[in-house]
Amino acid sequence: MDTTRRDFALALAALSLPVARYRGGPANDNRLVDAPPPQGPGSASMVGSEKIAFLLYPGFTALDVVGPHYMLASLMGAKVWLVAKTAGPVESDLQLAIAATSTFAECPEDLDILCVPGGTRGTASAMQDAATIAFLQERGKRAKYVTSVCTGSMLLGAAGLLDGYRATSHWATRDILKEFGAEPVDARVVVDRNRITGAGVTAGLDFGLEIVARQRDEAYAKGMQLLAEYAPAPRFQAGTPETAGPETTTMMRGMLAAAVAQFRKIAEQKKNR
Amino acid sequence: MDTTRRDFALALAALSLPVARYRGGPANDNRLVDAPPPQGPGSASMVGSEKIAFLLYPGFTALDVVGPHYMLASLMGAKVWLVAKTAGPVESDLQLAIAATSTFAECPEDLDILCVPGGTRGTASAMQDAATIAFLQERGKRAKYVTSVCTGSMLLGAAGLLDGYRATSHWATRDILKEFGAEPVDARVVVDRNRITGAGVTAGLDFGLEIVARQRDEAYAKGMQLLAEYAPAPRFQAGTPETAGPETTTMMRGMLAAAVAQFRKIAEQKKNR
Repeated sequence: MDTTRRDFALALAALSLPVARYRGGPANDNRLVDAPPPQGPGSASMVGSEKIAFLLYPGFTALDVVGPHYMLASLMGAKVWLVAKTAGPVESDLQLAIAATSTFAECPEDLDILCVPGGTRGTASAMQDAATIAFLQERGKRAKYVTSVCTGSMLLGAAGLLDGYRATSHWATRDILKEFGAEPVDARVVVDRNRITGAGVTAGLDFGLEIVARQRDEAYAKGMQLLAEYAPAPRFQAGTPETAGPETTTMMRGMLAAAVAQFRKIAEQKKNR
Repeated sequence: MDTTRRDFALALAALSLPVARYRGGPANDNRLVDAPPPQGPGSASMVGSEKIAFLLYPGFTALDVVGPHYMLASLMGAKVWLVAKTAGPVESDLQLAIAATSTFAECPEDLDILCVPGGTRGTASAMQDAATIAFLQERGKRAKYVTSVCTGSMLLGAAGLLDGYRATSHWATRDILKEFGAEPVDARVVVDRNRITGAGVTAGLDFGLEIVARQRDEAYAKGMQLLAEYAPAPRFQAGTPETAGPETTTMMRGMLAAAVAQFRKIAEQKKNR
């Protein structure tokens, strides 16, 4: 970790900030949170020891990883693994390649946070890849938190990890969650017991900040939000089907139709097995 | 480019959408835009032929690249280069490494968009690296748009590319822009002639969407915003010093103090040369 980031805890400590406990509650708030985060020992500590793994697979959406990674890799004391079937660069859906730091076998067995990014065609392929599904099932069974951003929820669903949970996904695929036994929720971030799911792509930032608040506290998360200058000013009001309106939504549904159909087909095949 | 993304233009065409011209004007709006984007031939076309290069250097902030990349790599017909001193994985400030696709020498000479990400220590090193500065000066002189996200503006400034321009930067470094002859502006995205600068880290999303709107049109940009499900719901109101309040701001200024001092020192050295 960059020394500047390591200085975060020192700066916090040096300034003797009143360490506010995470308050949960109404806030802003397009979230569904089933319960306030644990308030046990260490919940207000600046430094933790989380083991965090992001899954990489060919055709993943890079922003689904890098948004939350910015937040989670800044958790003092946490260690992050970028895990793929084979180590080395993994090409995303827009070609930009991120280097996997370890293979499935090299990934720690007991993770605190397992995070799965989305994509379209590549995600559908990963859903049908036995080694990837086995990895998710094995680590997901033991992980403290099993999480996804965007259509990463399709992969969690395919691994049977959302059965009986409330969850969200990219707006275009949210209703497919039912096929995996999950209850789709229209929210930016959904926390149901130890499952934390984010909506499409950019929801990874809100998702990441939610986890920072849960793993540390409000003061820490606010610091991260300020560091990221996360005061978004979207160019248009078009981030959801409701605000974008029917023309834009129809256009994008058309563009995503093939991928959505593929997700649905895989989900139905798994259900009927 | 993923076929799904390639289908974007086809979907648009098939649906015979009224291709709205970019309207500029008041919008949301924490932007400073000096003039509406060009309305010449092709400005309403779905497909372009932009040559876009992102600079990578050791210690860059990955989200400064991947946020805008998500938007710009989805410009139909555009080609993207991830450029570094040497090709291969380049480690970011939080270790996550992105693969550079080409060296400085392999980067096209005439770029449409040159985009420079920020960082802290790594950015200061790059500001003092003769080859990096020479690359920015040479490509920046010829590029149609010279752009930055976050403290990428420090690098543009060090290359003399912001002299006489209005610009923005990460909140903690914005006033250093003066040392480079620029006029600091407190806005999320600043467009002054062919310079487009974004504020800290997450401003890269708003920056990217602004460029999509300028290079294509409003319908296209709204489609991208919906695809990204960019309807942000930040966990707290803490994305700017004003909303975060004095305690959080003091803490983060403390954390960033060393990097800020380094930027200022380099800026002063360049001025006095």
